[in-house]
Amino acid sequence: MSIAPNPAALLEARQADMLPAVEQELQACVAAAEGHGLAEYAHMLAYHMGWEGEGAGPKAQGKRVRPLLVLLSAAAAGGAWQAALPASAAVELIHNFSLIHDDIQDDSPLRRGRKTLWTMVGVAQAINAGDALFALAHLALQRLAGRVPAEQALAAHHILPQASLTLTQGQYLDLSYEGRSDLTPADYWPMIGGKTAALLAACTELGALLGGASADRRACYRQFGEQLGLAFQVYDDYLGIWGDAALTGKSAESDLLAGKKSLPVLYALEQHGAFAERWAQGPLTAEDLPGMTLQLEVEGAREYIQREADRLTEAALTALSEAGPEAEAGAALEELARRLIARQA
Amino acid sequence: MSIAPNPAALLEARQADMLPAVEQELQACVAAAEGHGLAEYAHMLAYHMGWEGEGAGPKAQGKRVRPLLVLLSAAAAGGAWQAALPASAAVELIHNFSLIHDDIQDDSPLRRGRKTLWTMVGVAQAINAGDALFALAHLALQRLAGRVPAEQALAAHHILPQASLTLTQGQYLDLSYEGRSDLTPADYWPMIGGKTAALLAACTELGALLGGASADRRACYRQFGEQLGLAFQVYDDYLGIWGDAALTGKSAESDLLAGKKSLPVLYALEQHGAFAERWAQGPLTAEDLPGMTLQLEVEGAREYIQREADRLTEAALTALSEAGPEAEAGAALEELARRLIARQA
Repeated sequence: MSIAPNPAALLEARQADMLPAVEQELQACVAAAEGHGLAEYAHMLAYHMGWEGEGAGPKAQGKRVRPLLVLLSAAAAGGAWQAALPASAAVELIHNFSLIHDDIQDDSPLRRGRKTLWTMVGVAQAINAGDALFALAHLALQRLAGRVPAEQALAAHHILPQASLTLTQGQYLDLSYEGRSDLTPADYWPMIGGKTAALLAACTELGALLGGASADRRACYRQFGEQLGLAFQVYDDYLGIWGDAALTGKSAESDLLAGKKSLPVLYALEQHGAFAERWAQGPLTAEDLPGMTLQLEVEGAREYIQREADRLTEAALTALSEAGPEAEAGAALEELARRLIARQA
Repeated sequence: MSIAPNPAALLEARQADMLPAVEQELQACVAAAEGHGLAEYAHMLAYHMGWEGEGAGPKAQGKRVRPLLVLLSAAAAGGAWQAALPASAAVELIHNFSLIHDDIQDDSPLRRGRKTLWTMVGVAQAINAGDALFALAHLALQRLAGRVPAEQALAAHHILPQASLTLTQGQYLDLSYEGRSDLTPADYWPMIGGKTAALLAACTELGALLGGASADRRACYRQFGEQLGLAFQVYDDYLGIWGDAALTGKSAESDLLAGKKSLPVLYALEQHGAFAERWAQGPLTAEDLPGMTLQLEVEGAREYIQREADRLTEAALTALSEAGPEAEAGAALEELARRLIARQA
């Protein structure tokens, strides 16, 4: 019997401390948007954040993975995680701004099991609500003043908009890929690099920065977040085709039915085999799914994506190890990373 | 014959120096968005900024009033205006982000005589292009590093997102007023305070900050920008009804035909007279215009709006005077303010 806590217990203990503090910080940040005559405006933001309206609660709030990455990185770098709370709120607000705009751009009716904001208040007000969260994200960093040295705060003000810009570049690529039939895996990486990895890289870099890491170690934490983001997205694409519907909460083959150009599909299209031939003939139907899913595997897409996920996971964990994290916080951070990218297959 | 240059000549000399530098700074900031596979994305931003595509050129770029306010305020506060260039680009990028989103929200086909971005690339890509300019605005402030002390740069990072947030509050009010028939002038001020005055206040405050003004003087510059913004919008509403079509480039009565709830209309609605009675019956037609324009005047709306414009102009110029600006830059700044709010009536 060992007295050293296992990584799962370490992560859960940290989460129990950090998650309520994150929610409190987020609410304090969003409260800056309140004002006379602005009750409905504030309600839109609180609805999207999962605090108000039908279906409000933990499920509607999401897992707050990005704030946890910030705070655990700060602790792993040897700092007090509390000082990084404003940055943890900032990245979550950026994430949520992008979700509001994504839902409009993708015409999505549902998000985390609830009606998307634009379906309730219209496109015009929802665009504006997204803009408000974007502004609040940058304003959140103001709360670093007095908690960290000025040069750290200034560096945080540089990291956040750079990640936001890269996010819009990934989103541009994603939107521009619709209707294109000439895409390959080479087109995939810059798209998810922008859409997913840039913000996760900012999370771990901000945490390391505010935890007092040296420039070299900050670069390792950043690399950890970047590779983790790529691995996470590849894993998400895997689940979108081969995931257990009961685990993911969505139809196991939904990505194929939706025509999503995920990594397995782009890989198979480049093989110019039977999968690509059928794909070119138009949207798949439910009857096509078993055969096409098998065909993906026959053509090597499943093996390819497993290999890529393993490679990226390895790269992420190597970068984390090179960052030389403090033992317990580092173990919790590694556990969080493993949960995000664990292949349940 | 006097050898002291007059205010108009002073302003024009400053503009001749500053405007090319602003354009260069803006282009350097937007270049941060370029990248492999992003040519079309960068082109969208350059199109909206007036640099590329059909109709590109000075008219498509607008007057860059906000950057001039930043730079003249910096000079008036005794600083080198060149150090404030990144902030001047930042406010112009915020302004342009909001125009892209406004045009989507208002379903506007034209902006500065050219097709609006969303009509060319679709709503989804245009939302994202606006988001990109929003990110670039905050990223622009990074270029202050090394040009001004860290605490000035940090203060600039606080002012910009606060102004952006207030902008979204004004936009929320504007959108929420559509279809409402119970509005009065009291509803007008917070709306234009957010939509127009907040960013102008940020311009003059940023200029003063980066020009090295004391906290007291910064507050005077901010007040100058705020009142100038309100006066400018009131004047714009005046021109929307009583302006000379040849001067404004739009149909003299377009605001009445468009059903815009501008200040003269809100004033008249509160009188519950013949104007309000006809207004309640539905959209005006071209035949209604001469009678309704006269009715506005009969009910006192024209006099009211002239009085408000005078009051706000006076408040703006008093605040500028209290800021104790350097003589020549101050005269140029006052001249710019007078040109923005001069009633040509």
